[in-house]
Amino acid sequence: MAGNGAKNFLQQVLNVVTKEGGFDRCLSQMRIVSAEKGRCVAEVKVEKEHTNRSGAMHGGYTATLVDVVTTMALLTVNQETPGVSVDLNMSYMKAAKTGDEILINAELLKSGKTLAFLSADIVNKETGALIARGSHTKYVG
Amino acid sequence: MAGNGAKNFLQQVLNVVTKEGGFDRCLSQMRIVSAEKGRCVAEVKVEKEHTNRSGAMHGGYTATLVDVVTTMALLTVNQETPGVSVDLNMSYMKAAKTGDEILINAELLKSGKTLAFLSADIVNKETGALIARGSHTKYVG
Amino acid sequence: MAGNGAKNFLQQVLNVVTKEGGFDRCLSQMRIVSAEKGRCVAEVKVEKEHTNRSGAMHGGYTATLVDVVTTMALLTVNQETPGVSVDLNMSYMKAAKTGDEILINAELLKSGKTLAFLSADIVNKETGALIARGSHTKYVG
Amino acid sequence: MAGNGAKNFLQQVLNVVTKEGGFDRCLSQMRIVSAEKGRCVAEVKVEKEHTNRSGAMHGGYTATLVDVVTTMALLTVNQETPGVSVDLNMSYMKAAKTGDEILINAELLKSGKTLAFLSADIVNKETGALIARGSHTKYVG
Repeated sequence: MAGNGAKNFLQQVLNVVTKEGGFDRCLSQMRIVSAEKGRCVAEVKVEKEHTNRSGAMHGGYTATLVDVVTTMALLTVNQETPGVSVDLNMSYMKAAKTGDEILINAELLKSGKTLAFLSADIVNKETGALIARGSHTKYVG
Repeated sequence: MAGNGAKNFLQQVLNVVTKEGGFDRCLSQMRIVSAEKGRCVAEVKVEKEHTNRSGAMHGGYTATLVDVVTTMALLTVNQETPGVSVDLNMSYMKAAKTGDEILINAELLKSGKTLAFLSADIVNKETGALIARGSHTKYVG
Repeated sequence: MAGNGAKNFLQQVLNVVTKEGGFDRCLSQMRIVSAEKGRCVAEVKVEKEHTNRSGAMHGGYTATLVDVVTTMALLTVNQETPGVSVDLNMSYMKAAKTGDEILINAELLKSGKTLAFLSADIVNKETGALIARGSHTKYVG
Repeated sequence: MAGNGAKNFLQQVLNVVTKEGGFDRCLSQMRIVSAEKGRCVAEVKVEKEHTNRSGAMHGGYTATLVDVVTTMALLTVNQETPGVSVDLNMSYMKAAKTGDEILINAELLKSGKTLAFLSADIVNKETGALIARGSHTKYVG
Protein backbone atom coordinates (compact mmCIF):
# COMPACT_ATOMS: atom_id res chain seq x y z
CA MET A 1 0.00 0.00 0.00
CA ALA A 2 1.54 3.30 -1.02
CA GLY A 3 0.92 6.81 -2.26
CA ASN A 4 -2.64 8.11 -2.47
CA GLY A 5 -4.10 4.69 -1.70
CA ALA A 6 -2.32 4.60 1.64
CA LYS A 7 -3.04 8.26 2.36
CA ASN A 8 -6.76 7.86 1.62
CA PHE A 9 -6.99 4.69 3.71
CA LEU A 10 -5.35 6.32 6.73
CA GLN A 11 -7.46 9.47 6.39
CA GLN A 12 -10.56 7.25 6.44
CA VAL A 13 -9.31 5.40 9.52
CA LEU A 14 -8.69 8.75 11.19
CA ASN A 15 -12.15 10.03 10.24
CA VAL A 16 -13.74 6.95 11.79
CA VAL A 17 -11.75 6.78 15.04
CA THR A 18 -12.11 10.47 15.83
CA LYS A 19 -15.91 10.25 15.60
CA GLU A 20 -16.54 7.31 17.86
CA GLY A 21 -16.46 9.11 21.19
CA GLY A 22 -13.17 7.63 22.34
CA PHE A 23 -9.95 9.43 23.27
CA ASP A 24 -8.96 9.78 19.61
CA ARG A 25 -11.52 12.57 19.22
CA CYS A 26 -8.75 14.92 20.41
CA LEU A 27 -7.22 14.31 16.97
CA SER A 28 -10.30 15.32 14.98
CA GLN A 29 -8.55 18.25 13.30
CA MET A 30 -5.49 16.21 12.32
CA ARG A 31 -4.96 15.54 8.61
CA ILE A 32 -2.93 12.88 6.83
CA VAL A 33 -0.43 14.65 4.56
CA SER A 34 1.20 11.63 2.97
CA ALA A 35 1.72 7.94 3.45
CA GLU A 36 3.79 5.20 1.96
CA LYS A 37 5.02 1.78 3.05
CA GLY A 38 6.11 2.17 6.67
CA ARG A 39 5.66 5.93 6.77
CA CYS A 40 2.94 8.40 7.63
CA VAL A 41 3.06 12.19 7.82
CA ALA A 42 0.21 14.03 9.52
CA GLU A 43 -0.36 17.69 10.33
CA VAL A 44 -2.40 19.60 12.86
CA LYS A 45 -2.70 23.16 14.10
CA VAL A 46 -2.19 23.56 17.84
CA GLU A 47 -5.43 24.85 19.38
CA LYS A 48 -6.15 25.87 22.96
CA GLU A 49 -7.73 22.44 23.54
CA HIS A 50 -4.31 20.82 22.98
CA THR A 51 -2.41 22.99 25.42
CA ASN A 52 -1.44 23.16 29.08
CA ARG A 53 -1.78 26.16 31.38
CA SER A 54 1.37 27.72 29.93
CA GLY A 55 -0.22 27.86 26.48
CA ALA A 56 2.17 25.21 25.15
CA MET A 57 1.17 21.94 23.52
CA HIS A 58 0.46 19.48 26.33
CA GLY A 59 2.94 16.66 26.89
CA GLY A 60 0.08 14.17 27.04
CA TYR A 61 -1.33 15.37 23.72
CA THR A 62 2.16 15.22 22.20
CA ALA A 63 2.48 11.61 23.36
CA THR A 64 -0.95 10.88 21.88
CA LEU A 65 0.19 12.25 18.51
CA VAL A 66 3.18 9.92 18.55
CA ASP A 67 1.08 6.94 19.65
CA VAL A 68 -1.51 7.42 16.91
CA VAL A 69 0.61 8.51 13.94
CA THR A 70 3.16 5.73 14.47
CA THR A 71 0.22 3.32 14.53
CA MET A 72 -0.86 4.82 11.20
CA ALA A 73 2.64 4.08 9.84
CA LEU A 74 2.23 0.49 11.05
CA LEU A 75 -1.16 0.18 9.31
CA THR A 76 0.51 0.92 5.95
CA VAL A 77 2.21 -2.47 6.12
CA ASN A 78 -0.66 -4.38 7.73
CA GLN A 79 -4.13 -2.90 7.67
CA GLU A 80 -5.38 -5.55 10.06
CA THR A 81 -2.96 -5.04 12.93
CA PRO A 82 -2.79 -1.79 14.89
CA GLY A 83 -0.90 -3.74 17.58
CA VAL A 84 -0.77 -3.11 21.33
CA SER A 85 1.60 -0.59 22.94
CA VAL A 86 4.52 -2.01 24.89
CA ASP A 87 6.79 1.01 25.43
CA LEU A 88 6.42 4.66 24.46
CA ASN A 89 9.30 7.06 25.07
CA MET A 90 9.10 10.80 24.56
CA SER A 91 11.77 13.49 24.50
CA TYR A 92 10.48 17.07 24.56
CA MET A 93 12.87 19.51 22.92
CA LYS A 94 10.92 22.69 22.26
CA ALA A 95 7.49 24.11 22.99
CA ALA A 96 4.77 24.38 20.34
CA LYS A 97 2.38 27.26 20.97
CA THR A 98 -1.28 27.84 20.17
CA GLY A 99 -1.57 28.61 16.48
CA ASP A 100 1.57 26.71 15.48
CA GLU A 101 1.13 24.26 12.66
CA ILE A 102 3.03 21.06 13.26
CA LEU A 103 3.98 17.98 11.29
CA ILE A 104 4.20 14.48 12.72
CA ASN A 105 6.62 12.33 10.70
CA ALA A 106 6.22 8.70 11.69
CA GLU A 107 8.28 5.75 10.55
CA LEU A 108 8.28 2.00 11.03
CA LEU A 109 11.90 1.21 11.94
CA LYS A 110 11.60 -2.57 12.19
CA SER A 111 8.71 -4.96 11.79
CA GLY A 112 9.17 -8.44 13.18
CA LYS A 113 6.82 -11.35 13.76
CA THR A 114 5.76 -10.17 17.19
CA LEU A 115 7.16 -6.68 17.68
CA ALA A 116 7.18 -3.48 15.66
CA PHE A 117 9.54 -0.58 16.43
CA LEU A 118 8.32 2.85 15.40
CA SER A 119 9.49 6.41 15.73
CA ALA A 120 8.02 9.86 15.16
CA ASP A 121 9.48 13.35 14.95
CA ILE A 122 7.19 16.29 15.62
CA VAL A 123 8.38 19.46 13.91
CA ASN A 124 7.17 23.01 13.48
CA LYS A 125 5.82 23.15 9.94
CA GLU A 126 7.05 26.68 9.29
CA THR A 127 10.47 26.64 10.92
CA GLY A 128 11.28 22.94 10.77
CA ALA A 129 12.37 23.06 14.43
CA LEU A 130 12.20 19.72 16.23
CA ILE A 131 9.54 19.86 18.96
CA ALA A 132 9.60 16.27 20.19
CA ARG A 133 10.78 12.80 19.27
CA GLY A 134 8.97 9.68 20.34
CA SER A 135 9.73 5.99 20.01
CA HIS A 136 6.98 3.41 20.21
CA THR A 137 7.30 -0.36 20.53
CA LYS A 138 4.15 -2.35 19.74
CA TYR A 139 3.23 -5.99 20.09
CA VAL A 140 1.78 -7.24 16.81
CA GLY A 141 1.95 -11.03 17.28
CA MET B 1 2.93 20.60 52.65
CA ALA B 2 1.33 17.31 53.66
CA GLY B 3 -1.88 15.48 54.45
CA ASN B 4 -5.20 17.22 53.86
CA GLY B 5 -3.52 20.54 53.10
CA ALA B 6 -1.63 19.02 50.21
CA LYS B 7 -4.62 17.00 49.05
CA ASN B 8 -6.93 20.02 49.09
CA PHE B 9 -4.38 22.17 47.28
CA LEU B 10 -3.89 19.61 44.51
CA GLN B 11 -7.65 19.03 44.16
CA GLN B 12 -8.08 22.79 43.70
CA VAL B 13 -5.32 22.89 41.09
CA LEU B 14 -7.02 20.01 39.30
CA ASN B 15 -10.40 21.72 39.45
CA VAL B 16 -8.94 24.84 37.89
CA VAL B 17 -6.86 23.26 35.12
CA THR B 18 -9.63 20.92 33.97
CA LYS B 19 -12.03 23.85 33.48
CA GLU B 20 -9.89 26.15 31.40
CA GLY B 21 -10.49 24.57 28.01
CA GLY B 22 -7.02 23.09 27.63
CA PHE B 23 -6.03 19.46 27.19
CA ASP B 24 -6.33 18.79 30.92
CA ARG B 25 -10.12 18.79 30.58
CA CYS B 26 -9.77 15.06 29.75
CA LEU B 27 -8.97 14.65 33.46
CA SER B 28 -12.12 16.36 34.74
CA GLN B 29 -13.39 13.21 36.46
CA MET B 30 -10.09 12.49 38.18
CA ARG B 31 -9.96 12.88 41.95
CA ILE B 32 -7.04 13.38 44.32
CA VAL B 33 -7.09 10.55 46.87
CA SER B 34 -4.14 11.56 48.98
CA ALA B 35 -1.02 13.67 48.92
CA GLU B 36 2.06 14.17 51.01
CA LYS B 37 5.55 15.51 50.46
CA GLY B 38 6.69 14.16 47.10
CA ARG B 39 3.68 11.91 46.60
CA CYS B 40 0.25 12.11 45.03
CA VAL B 41 -2.39 9.41 44.55
CA ALA B 42 -5.28 10.09 42.18
CA GLU B 43 -8.15 7.94 40.98
CA VAL B 44 -10.39 7.89 37.95
CA LYS B 45 -12.95 5.56 36.38
CA VAL B 46 -12.18 4.61 32.79
CA GLU B 47 -14.96 5.95 30.56
CA LYS B 48 -15.49 5.49 26.85
CA GLU B 49 -13.95 8.91 26.25
CA HIS B 50 -10.61 7.59 27.60
CA THR B 51 -10.45 4.52 25.39
CA ASN B 52 -9.24 3.41 21.99
CA ARG B 53 -11.21 1.40 19.43
CA SER B 54 -10.53 -1.83 21.32
CA GLY B 55 -12.34 -0.47 24.37
CA ALA B 56 -9.11 -0.29 26.34
CA MET B 57 -7.69 2.81 28.02
CA HIS B 58 -5.84 4.78 25.33
CA GLY B 59 -2.05 4.86 25.48
CA GLY B 60 -2.11 8.62 25.01
CA TYR B 61 -4.55 9.10 27.89
CA THR B 62 -2.41 6.81 30.06
CA ALA B 63 0.64 8.95 29.28
CA THR B 64 -1.39 12.06 30.13
CA LEU B 65 -2.28 10.57 33.53
CA VAL B 66 1.41 10.00 34.26
CA ASP B 67 2.38 13.47 33.04
CA VAL B 68 -0.20 15.24 35.18
CA VAL B 69 -0.15 13.20 38.39
CA THR B 70 3.65 13.21 38.58
CA THR B 71 3.47 16.99 38.18
CA MET B 72 1.02 17.02 41.11
CA ALA B 73 3.61 15.10 43.16
CA LEU B 74 6.17 17.74 42.21
CA LEU B 75 3.82 20.55 43.28
CA THR B 76 3.74 19.13 46.82
CA VAL B 77 7.35 20.21 47.27
CA ASN B 78 7.17 23.45 45.32
CA GLN B 79 3.78 24.97 44.58
CA GLU B 80 5.34 27.50 42.23
CA THR B 81 7.12 25.15 39.84
CA PRO B 82 5.26 22.63 37.69
CA GLY B 83 8.43 22.39 35.55
CA VAL B 84 8.77 21.53 31.88
CA SER B 85 8.81 17.96 30.54
CA VAL B 86 12.16 16.65 29.32
CA ASP B 87 11.56 12.90 28.96
CA LEU B 88 8.49 10.74 29.53
CA ASN B 89 8.78 6.97 29.30
CA MET B 90 5.82 4.60 29.44
CA SER B 91 5.64 0.82 29.79
CA TYR B 92 2.21 -0.69 29.17
CA MET B 93 1.71 -3.95 31.04
CA LYS B 94 -2.02 -4.65 31.04
CA ALA B 95 -5.19 -3.20 29.56
CA ALA B 96 -7.69 -1.20 31.60
CA LYS B 97 -11.24 -1.49 30.29
CA THR B 98 -14.23 0.85 30.33
CA GLY B 99 -15.69 0.84 33.83
CA ASP B 100 -12.44 -0.07 35.56
CA GLU B 101 -11.46 2.17 38.44
CA ILE B 102 -7.79 2.94 38.48
CA LEU B 103 -5.31 4.52 40.85
CA ILE B 104 -2.34 6.62 39.77
CA ASN B 105 0.44 6.51 42.39
CA ALA B 106 2.99 9.20 41.64
CA GLU B 107 6.26 9.82 43.41
CA LEU B 108 9.09 12.34 43.24
CA LEU B 109 12.23 10.18 43.12
CA LYS B 110 14.81 12.96 43.12
CA SER B 111 14.55 16.70 43.18
CA GLY B 112 17.64 18.64 42.20
CA LYS B 113 18.33 22.29 41.44
CA THR B 114 17.42 21.98 37.77
CA LEU B 115 15.92 18.53 37.26
CA ALA B 116 13.21 16.50 38.97
CA PHE B 117 12.83 12.74 38.44
CA LEU B 118 9.33 11.38 38.91
CA SER B 119 7.59 8.05 38.51
CA ALA B 120 4.01 6.80 38.51
CA ASP B 121 2.40 3.40 38.69
CA ILE B 122 -1.12 2.98 37.36
CA VAL B 123 -2.97 0.10 39.00
CA ASN B 124 -6.42 -1.43 38.88
CA LYS B 125 -8.10 -0.26 42.09
CA GLU B 126 -9.97 -3.52 42.65
CA THR B 127 -7.35 -6.10 41.72
CA GLY B 128 -4.16 -4.13 42.32
CA ALA B 129 -2.84 -5.30 38.94
CA LEU B 130 -0.18 -3.06 37.43
CA ILE B 131 -1.51 -1.45 34.24
CA ALA B 132 1.36 0.87 33.35
CA ARG B 133 4.46 2.47 34.77
CA GLY B 134 5.76 5.81 33.64
CA SER B 135 8.87 7.81 34.42
CA HIS B 136 8.96 11.56 33.91
CA THR B 137 11.96 13.88 33.96
CA LYS B 138 11.18 17.58 34.30
CA TYR B 139 13.28 20.70 34.09
CA VAL B 140 12.61 22.88 37.13
CA GLY B 141 15.54 25.31 37.03
CA MET C 1 12.48 -20.78 43.56
CA ALA C 2 13.13 -18.62 46.59
CA GLY C 3 15.50 -17.77 49.42
CA ASN C 4 18.93 -19.35 49.52
CA GLY C 5 18.09 -21.69 46.64
CA ALA C 6 17.42 -18.75 44.36
CA LYS C 7 20.38 -16.79 45.68
CA ASN C 8 22.78 -19.69 45.20
CA PHE C 9 21.48 -20.40 41.71
CA LEU C 10 21.90 -16.78 40.61
CA GLN C 11 25.37 -16.53 42.17
CA GLN C 12 26.37 -19.62 40.19
CA VAL C 13 24.97 -18.14 36.97
CA LEU C 14 26.92 -14.96 37.69
CA ASN C 15 30.12 -16.90 38.38
CA VAL C 16 29.78 -18.69 35.06
CA VAL C 17 28.88 -15.73 32.84
CA THR C 18 31.59 -13.46 34.22
CA LYS C 19 34.29 -16.04 33.43
CA GLU C 20 33.47 -16.78 29.82
CA GLY C 21 35.25 -13.84 28.22
CA GLY C 22 32.11 -11.98 27.20
CA PHE C 23 30.97 -8.51 28.21
CA ASP C 24 29.62 -9.77 31.54
CA ARG C 25 33.19 -10.04 32.83
CA CYS C 26 32.79 -6.36 33.85
CA LEU C 27 30.49 -7.71 36.58
CA SER C 28 33.00 -10.15 38.04
CA GLN C 29 33.09 -8.42 41.43
CA MET C 30 29.31 -8.23 41.73
CA ARG C 31 27.68 -10.38 44.41
CA ILE C 32 24.11 -11.64 44.78
CA VAL C 33 22.79 -10.40 48.13
CA SER C 34 19.35 -11.99 48.06
CA ALA C 35 16.80 -13.43 45.69
CA GLU C 36 13.22 -14.53 45.79
CA LYS C 37 10.44 -15.05 43.26
CA GLY C 38 10.65 -12.09 40.85
CA ARG C 39 13.32 -10.25 42.80
CA CYS C 40 17.09 -10.05 42.91
CA VAL C 41 19.36 -7.78 44.93
CA ALA C 42 23.04 -7.54 43.98
CA GLU C 43 25.88 -5.42 45.29
CA VAL C 44 29.15 -4.17 43.91
CA LYS C 45 31.85 -1.68 44.89
CA VAL C 46 32.54 0.97 42.26
CA GLU C 47 36.12 0.56 41.04
CA LYS C 48 38.11 2.70 38.61
CA GLU C 49 37.33 0.18 35.85
CA HIS C 50 33.62 1.06 36.16
CA THR C 51 34.03 4.82 35.87
CA ASN C 52 34.23 7.57 33.27
CA ARG C 53 36.83 10.34 33.09
CA SER C 54 35.07 12.29 35.83
CA GLY C 55 35.60 9.43 38.28
CA ALA C 56 31.88 8.69 38.36
CA MET C 57 30.26 5.33 37.60
CA HIS C 58 29.92 5.15 33.78
CA GLY C 59 26.44 5.42 32.31
CA GLY C 60 27.11 2.38 30.14
CA TYR C 61 28.18 0.29 33.13
CA THR C 62 25.10 1.49 35.04
CA ALA C 63 22.91 0.35 32.14
CA THR C 64 24.74 -2.99 32.13
CA LEU C 65 23.96 -3.44 35.84
CA VAL C 66 20.26 -2.87 35.15
CA ASP C 67 20.28 -5.18 32.13
CA VAL C 68 21.93 -8.05 34.00
CA VAL C 69 20.33 -7.83 37.44
CA THR C 70 16.80 -7.51 36.02
CA THR C 71 17.58 -10.60 33.94
CA MET C 72 18.58 -12.33 37.20
CA ALA C 73 15.17 -11.37 38.64
CA LEU C 74 13.55 -12.91 35.57
CA LEU C 75 15.54 -16.13 36.00
CA THR C 76 13.98 -16.61 39.45
CA VAL C 77 10.65 -17.36 37.78
CA ASN C 78 12.01 -19.25 34.79
CA GLN C 79 15.55 -20.60 34.89
CA GLU C 80 15.41 -21.47 31.20
CA THR C 81 14.51 -18.07 29.76
CA PRO C 82 16.80 -15.08 30.09
CA GLY C 83 14.80 -13.46 27.27
CA VAL C 84 15.91 -10.90 24.69
CA SER C 85 16.02 -7.15 25.36
CA VAL C 86 13.36 -5.04 23.66
CA ASP C 87 13.61 -1.68 25.45
CA LEU C 88 15.91 -0.45 28.21
CA ASN C 89 15.33 2.98 29.73
CA MET C 90 17.65 4.63 32.22
CA SER C 91 17.27 7.72 34.39
CA TYR C 92 20.44 8.94 36.08
CA MET C 93 19.77 10.81 39.30
CA LYS C 94 23.04 11.00 41.18
CA ALA C 95 26.68 10.10 40.63
CA ALA C 96 28.32 7.10 42.29
CA LYS C 97 32.04 7.57 42.88
CA THR C 98 35.00 5.20 43.03
CA GLY C 99 34.86 3.36 46.34
CA ASP C 100 31.10 3.67 46.77
CA GLU C 101 29.28 0.45 47.50
CA ILE C 102 26.03 0.18 45.64
CA LEU C 103 22.99 -2.06 45.67
CA ILE C 104 21.00 -3.04 42.61
CA ASN C 105 17.39 -3.89 43.52
CA ALA C 106 15.68 -5.58 40.58
CA GLU C 107 12.06 -6.60 40.29
CA LEU C 108 9.87 -8.39 37.77
CA LEU C 109 6.84 -6.10 37.44
CA LYS C 110 4.80 -8.22 35.01
CA SER C 111 5.45 -11.53 33.35
CA GLY C 112 3.30 -12.39 30.36
CA LYS C 113 3.42 -15.12 27.74
CA THR C 114 5.71 -13.17 25.43
CA LEU C 115 6.89 -10.10 27.33
CA ALA C 116 8.38 -9.46 30.75
CA PHE C 117 8.54 -5.99 32.32
CA LEU C 118 11.33 -5.42 34.80
CA SER C 119 12.70 -2.55 36.82
CA ALA C 120 15.80 -1.87 38.90
CA ASP C 121 16.80 0.83 41.35
CA ILE C 122 20.48 1.43 41.99
CA VAL C 123 21.14 2.93 45.40
CA ASN C 124 24.14 3.93 47.49
CA LYS C 125 24.44 1.16 50.10
CA GLU C 126 25.54 3.51 52.88
CA THR C 127 23.28 6.50 52.33
CA GLY C 128 20.36 4.87 50.53
CA ALA C 129 20.43 7.67 47.92
CA LEU C 130 18.92 6.73 44.57
CA ILE C 131 21.62 6.74 41.90
CA ALA C 132 19.65 5.48 38.89
CA ARG C 133 16.43 3.75 37.93
CA GLY C 134 16.12 1.55 34.88
CA SER C 135 13.20 -0.22 33.24
CA HIS C 136 13.77 -3.22 31.01
CA THR C 137 11.29 -4.92 28.68
CA LYS C 138 12.28 -8.38 27.49
CA TYR C 139 10.82 -10.75 24.94
CA VAL C 140 10.44 -14.18 26.51
CA GLY C 141 8.11 -15.91 24.03
CA MET D 1 34.58 22.18 14.17
CA ALA D 2 34.01 19.98 11.13
CA GLY D 3 35.50 17.48 8.73
CA ASN D 4 38.95 16.04 9.43
CA GLY D 5 39.55 18.46 12.28
CA ALA D 6 36.54 17.14 14.14
CA LYS D 7 37.33 13.54 13.23
CA ASN D 8 40.92 13.81 14.41
CA PHE D 9 39.91 15.53 17.63
CA LEU D 10 37.35 12.85 18.48
CA GLN D 11 39.76 10.03 17.60
CA GLN D 12 42.29 11.58 19.98
CA VAL D 13 39.68 11.85 22.74
CA LEU D 14 38.80 8.20 22.14
CA ASN D 15 42.45 7.16 22.23
CA VAL D 16 42.89 8.89 25.57
CA VAL D 17 39.73 7.71 27.33
CA THR D 18 40.15 4.09 26.31
CA LYS D 19 43.66 3.95 27.80
CA GLU D 20 42.97 5.35 31.24
CA GLY D 21 41.71 2.19 32.91
CA GLY D 22 38.08 3.28 33.14
CA PHE D 23 35.00 1.64 31.66
CA ASP D 24 35.66 3.22 28.24
CA ARG D 25 38.46 0.71 27.68
CA CYS D 26 35.73 -1.61 26.31
CA LEU D 27 35.69 0.75 23.30
CA SER D 28 39.42 0.48 22.57
CA GLN D 29 38.85 -1.06 19.13
CA MET D 30 36.28 1.54 18.09
CA ARG D 31 37.27 3.97 15.34
CA ILE D 32 35.88 7.39 14.40
CA VAL D 33 34.75 7.22 10.76
CA SER D 34 33.62 10.80 10.32
CA ALA D 35 32.52 13.84 12.26
CA GLU D 36 30.96 17.17 11.56
CA LYS D 37 29.02 19.75 13.55
CA GLY D 38 26.57 17.79 15.71
CA ARG D 39 27.36 14.41 14.16
CA CYS D 40 29.73 11.54 14.75
CA VAL D 41 29.97 8.18 13.02
CA ALA D 42 32.05 5.43 14.62
CA GLU D 43 32.65 1.81 13.73
CA VAL D 44 33.64 -1.31 15.59
CA LYS D 45 33.81 -5.04 14.96
CA VAL D 46 31.84 -7.13 17.43
CA GLU D 47 34.28 -9.36 19.34
CA LYS D 48 33.56 -12.05 21.91
CA GLU D 49 34.37 -9.53 24.67
CA HIS D 50 31.33 -7.47 23.59
CA THR D 51 28.84 -10.32 23.64
CA ASN D 52 26.46 -12.12 25.99
CA ARG D 53 26.16 -15.87 26.45
CA SER D 54 24.09 -16.16 23.27
CA GLY D 55 26.96 -14.81 21.20
CA ALA D 56 25.06 -11.60 20.47
CA MET D 57 26.28 -8.08 21.20
CA HIS D 58 25.47 -7.38 24.86
CA GLY D 59 22.68 -4.93 25.62
CA GLY D 60 24.91 -3.15 28.12
CA TYR D 61 27.70 -2.76 25.57
CA THR D 62 25.17 -1.49 23.03
CA ALA D 63 23.99 1.12 25.53
CA THR D 64 27.62 2.07 26.16
CA LEU D 65 28.15 2.64 22.43
CA VAL D 66 25.15 4.99 22.35
CA ASP D 67 26.26 6.80 25.50
CA VAL D 68 29.79 7.41 24.23
CA VAL D 69 29.23 8.14 20.53
CA THR D 70 26.39 10.59 21.24
CA THR D 71 28.75 12.31 23.66
CA MET D 72 31.29 12.50 20.81
CA ALA D 73 28.60 14.20 18.67
CA LEU D 74 28.06 16.68 21.50
CA LEU D 75 31.80 17.40 21.72
CA THR D 76 31.78 18.56 18.09
CA VAL D 77 29.80 21.63 19.15
CA ASN D 78 31.49 22.18 22.49
CA GLN D 79 34.83 20.54 23.18
CA GLU D 80 34.66 21.54 26.82
CA THR D 81 31.34 19.99 27.79
CA PRO D 82 30.74 16.26 27.65
CA GLY D 83 27.73 16.84 29.90
CA VAL D 84 26.10 14.50 32.41
CA SER D 85 23.59 11.79 31.47
CA VAL D 86 19.98 12.43 32.45
CA ASP D 87 18.05 9.79 30.47
CA LEU D 88 19.20 7.05 28.10
CA ASN D 89 16.61 5.01 26.21
CA MET D 90 17.43 1.98 24.10
CA SER D 91 15.34 -0.03 21.64
CA TYR D 92 16.88 -3.30 20.50
CA MET D 93 15.68 -4.36 17.06
CA LYS D 94 18.09 -7.01 15.83
CA ALA D 95 21.04 -9.00 17.13
CA ALA D 96 24.62 -8.26 16.09
CA LYS D 97 26.83 -11.33 16.18
CA THR D 98 30.55 -11.86 16.79
CA GLY D 99 32.43 -10.79 13.68
CA ASP D 100 29.78 -8.30 12.53
CA GLU D 101 31.06 -4.85 11.72
CA ILE D 102 28.74 -2.14 12.94
CA LEU D 103 28.38 1.58 12.52
CA ILE D 104 27.17 3.95 15.21
CA ASN D 105 25.59 7.07 13.69
CA ALA D 106 25.12 9.70 16.39
CA GLU D 107 23.40 13.04 16.07
CA LEU D 108 22.78 16.07 18.26
CA LEU D 109 19.05 16.73 17.84
CA LYS D 110 18.79 19.85 19.99
CA SER D 111 21.29 21.77 22.02
CA GLY D 112 19.92 24.18 24.58
CA LYS D 113 21.46 26.19 27.41
CA THR D 114 21.14 23.38 29.94
CA LEU D 115 20.06 20.26 28.06
CA ALA D 116 21.24 18.45 24.95
CA PHE D 117 19.11 15.84 23.15
CA LEU D 118 21.03 13.22 21.21
CA SER D 119 20.24 10.09 19.26
CA ALA D 120 22.19 7.22 17.75
CA ASP D 121 21.36 4.45 15.31
CA ILE D 122 23.48 1.32 15.35
CA VAL D 123 23.47 -0.48 12.00
CA ASN D 124 25.13 -3.49 10.46
CA LYS D 125 27.85 -2.05 8.20
CA GLU D 126 27.39 -4.68 5.49
CA THR D 127 23.61 -5.03 5.36
CA GLY D 128 22.54 -1.65 6.69
CA ALA D 129 20.05 -3.41 9.01
CA LEU D 130 19.08 -1.39 12.08
CA ILE D 131 20.37 -3.13 15.22
CA ALA D 132 19.41 -0.60 17.88
CA ARG D 133 18.34 2.99 18.35
CA GLY D 134 19.15 4.98 21.44
CA SER D 135 18.19 8.44 22.65
CA HIS D 136 20.32 10.26 25.19
CA THR D 137 19.46 13.41 27.14
CA LYS D 138 22.40 15.17 28.78
CA TYR D 139 22.69 18.06 31.20
CA VAL D 140 25.21 20.56 29.87
CA GLY D 141 24.45 23.65 31.97
